[in-house]
Amino acid sequence: MPPVENKIILPKSELPTTWYNVLPDLPEPMGPYMTPGGQPVSPSDLAGIFPQALIDQEVSTERIHSIPEPVLEALSIWRPTPLVRARRLEQALGVSSRIYYKDESVSPSGSHKSNTAMAQAFFNRQAGITRLTTETGAGQWGTALAIAAKQFGITARVYMVKVSLEQKPYRKVIMNLMGAEVLPSPSQETQAGRRALEENPKALGTLGLAISEAVEEAASRPDTNYVLGSVLNHVILHQTVIGQEVKKQLALAGEKPDFLIACHGGGSNFGGLVSPYVKDILSGQKIRAIAVEPESCPSLTAGEFRYDAGDSAGFTPLMPMYTLGTSFQPPAIHAGGLRYHGSSPIVSALLKSKVIEAAAVSAADCFKFAQMLAWSEYVIPAPESSHALALTCLKALELESAGKPGCLVFTLSGHGLLDLAAYQAHQD
Amino acid sequence: MPPVENKIILPKSELPTTWYNVLPDLPEPMGPYMTPGGQPVSPSDLAGIFPQALIDQEVSTERIHSIPEPVLEALSIWRPTPLVRARRLEQALGVSSRIYYKDESVSPSGSHKSNTAMAQAFFNRQAGITRLTTETGAGQWGTALAIAAKQFGITARVYMVKVSLEQKPYRKVIMNLMGAEVLPSPSQETQAGRRALEENPKALGTLGLAISEAVEEAASRPDTNYVLGSVLNHVILHQTVIGQEVKKQLALAGEKPDFLIACHGGGSNFGGLVSPYVKDILSGQKIRAIAVEPESCPSLTAGEFRYDAGDSAGFTPLMPMYTLGTSFQPPAIHAGGLRYHGSSPIVSALLKSKVIEAAAVSAADCFKFAQMLAWSEYVIPAPESSHALALTCLKALELESAGKPGCLVFTLSGHGLLDLAAYQAHQD
Repeated sequence: MPPVENKIILPKSELPTTWYNVLPDLPEPMGPYMTPGGQPVSPSDLAGIFPQALIDQEVSTERIHSIPEPVLEALSIWRPTPLVRARRLEQALGVSSRIYYKDESVSPSGSHKSNTAMAQAFFNRQAGITRLTTETGAGQWGTALAIAAKQFGITARVYMVKVSLEQKPYRKVIMNLMGAEVLPSPSQETQAGRRALEENPKALGTLGLAISEAVEEAASRPDTNYVLGSVLNHVILHQTVIGQEVKKQLALAGEKPDFLIACHGGGSNFGGLVSPYVKDILSGQKIRAIAVEPESCPSLTAGEFRYDAGDSAGFTPLMPMYTLGTSFQPPAIHAGGLRYHGSSPIVSALLKSKVIEAAAVSAADCFKFAQMLAWSEYVIPAPESSHALALTCLKALELESAGKPGCLVFTLSGHGLLDLAAYQAHQD
Repeated sequence: MPPVENKIILPKSELPTTWYNVLPDLPEPMGPYMTPGGQPVSPSDLAGIFPQALIDQEVSTERIHSIPEPVLEALSIWRPTPLVRARRLEQALGVSSRIYYKDESVSPSGSHKSNTAMAQAFFNRQAGITRLTTETGAGQWGTALAIAAKQFGITARVYMVKVSLEQKPYRKVIMNLMGAEVLPSPSQETQAGRRALEENPKALGTLGLAISEAVEEAASRPDTNYVLGSVLNHVILHQTVIGQEVKKQLALAGEKPDFLIACHGGGSNFGGLVSPYVKDILSGQKIRAIAVEPESCPSLTAGEFRYDAGDSAGFTPLMPMYTLGTSFQPPAIHAGGLRYHGSSPIVSALLKSKVIEAAAVSAADCFKFAQMLAWSEYVIPAPESSHALALTCLKALELESAGKPGCLVFTLSGHGLLDLAAYQAHQD
């Protein structure tokens, strides 16, 4: 019996050459970003920290955006990524459903974050920017940005949530190896950081505060812009290569998805998978798209839909989104990338319109199914990705009980080889 | 311009179905393994710790060995592995030579060790063995064995060199995650370990001592066998899938190799790449095959060719090999997989007959070219693999100076994502 090929691999020639903008597909138009004073934010208000090309993408009404040649070249280093049929996981679960995972862990940073990092670094370089600041939680985004900055010859400074930096010192090693500077947040470098340290010298840090620090620094220096790893419309735009590839790969496998499942922190991983399917869902195709978050940080499932700031200090515009409030202090769970009070305006709008669903899973289920994936597929998922995995497994078991197996697709947004402290905590 | 495909990927149908035994190709027959008393070791002497199938392979005079179906199935989880043209590394070096690396880092354990781990676990299970002991230095072999034991339903206990365990706690996390037990060596579990701790309670451990502990335990329990991750003939046999795939992949690229380069600790990585080429070299093809070791642990380049034991306590047979002596205490360099006093009898025989060459590289060069690989290809090599990388880069620069570019192939035996402490040490 010849070995079975479980990976659906597209040739380089099938790399998507455009991004898909879902904004025109939203059933209700998204409300504008607002200033704290209650005025709509104008594109020029953002010009201090973003290049014009990204501001244009943020509010674009065009569905199709060409990917510039240098970005295509950078993406082609690792894309298209494999879609993998997880047959051994199916056997371990004892289900007859077909489970596929889109393997974004093969990128230079080990996660999907590289998709937008390369694009954002390019557009900033094109605009003459030579220095970028950003924040990172788990370290995946910081790593992706460090590599993208290296690719396009830009200096990068990364504010890393202090608790994550302490849990994951090796993330800093990689970022440093790639030439980026890494500071623990709260830091003494910004007013926002100093204020937080005055209030609590032992503050663990939050993603919201790290964003404040990175934005504050970028706003104060003309050579420096700010880049964000998730939440914003242009970030989700860049991630739509994921869903476009999945569509082609499922077609090659002769499959149509019943479930599209991705974890949700700021929303870019989920939005990137689902955006290219929104028109299909609206036209009546029976696809359940589910964003998965931790029970301990339930922005979508327990948050309120309202205008709120993206950061804790209130430097960012107010955005219409599901939020737990900027003062929400997430517990120090290890899925650092999901420790965010807010959510993506696009994902929020899709949820509010009931185009998609949201679900929360427990840390215990995440670890249980992560170990099952490790034992069956020999893949150790990032703690973030284990949320998508856990819901996929739970749904597959539900379908089995109901006698209605189906096709489930989830995003393995990253590998867990740099997050083994999280696994260690469960073993001890 | 369409994106260039740098990876040469073979379909599953091209997975080698046989192993290539180089023993019959050696210009001079290898001397038999000897007992400490000076008698040739008989196959039955090994039966206490190895299954018959592996003993047969150890002394086989057949060139072609069929790979059993369950091993093929296990290998097909990740094989064939890609051969990658490192164009961006070539540009960074400024050379017109073509550099290829065989990417063994894509295995479940992140290194080439899985190739033989799967085979050894299978043959032991087939012989009714339910428990395996082994040693590990850097942790790559222990990880590979833990996964292979899981695959074939065997319990595994890993003696890990203490200094490596302290430098790389996350290797233990993975081995535990896969269900294996991990003990620091020297341990209190064996006579060899207790003796070492009596002599020096703070002993850092060596690969030789960890082997003694694992062998002692296996010899004392009928349900337990011992498995070794390198050195022995049957281990090199299992690794020949590497060289066989490289041959096919280079043919697809229209290339013939001028250099075949791999790092050398116990010899299996190098032997696996080069064995299928030995007949070609002997028949006059101009291929320079070079085994690379650290300057600080120079078994091949500064050792003596003589009979010596494979472990420090003298439990193993005496083997004809290049050795620094069993009392050699390697410095705590981070390439733990290369901290071994001896070498593979096959590689030693090839070196003595001048079929292959050996070279030593400095830690500074390893780090320098590892950073260049990270900056150009966005790949972080295992410290072991950085030795092969460094020599490849140095040779490519030499060829460039001489105006004679060529085709260089090295094995990326593993990735460095679990070895970031080594990089951290260079950064601090």
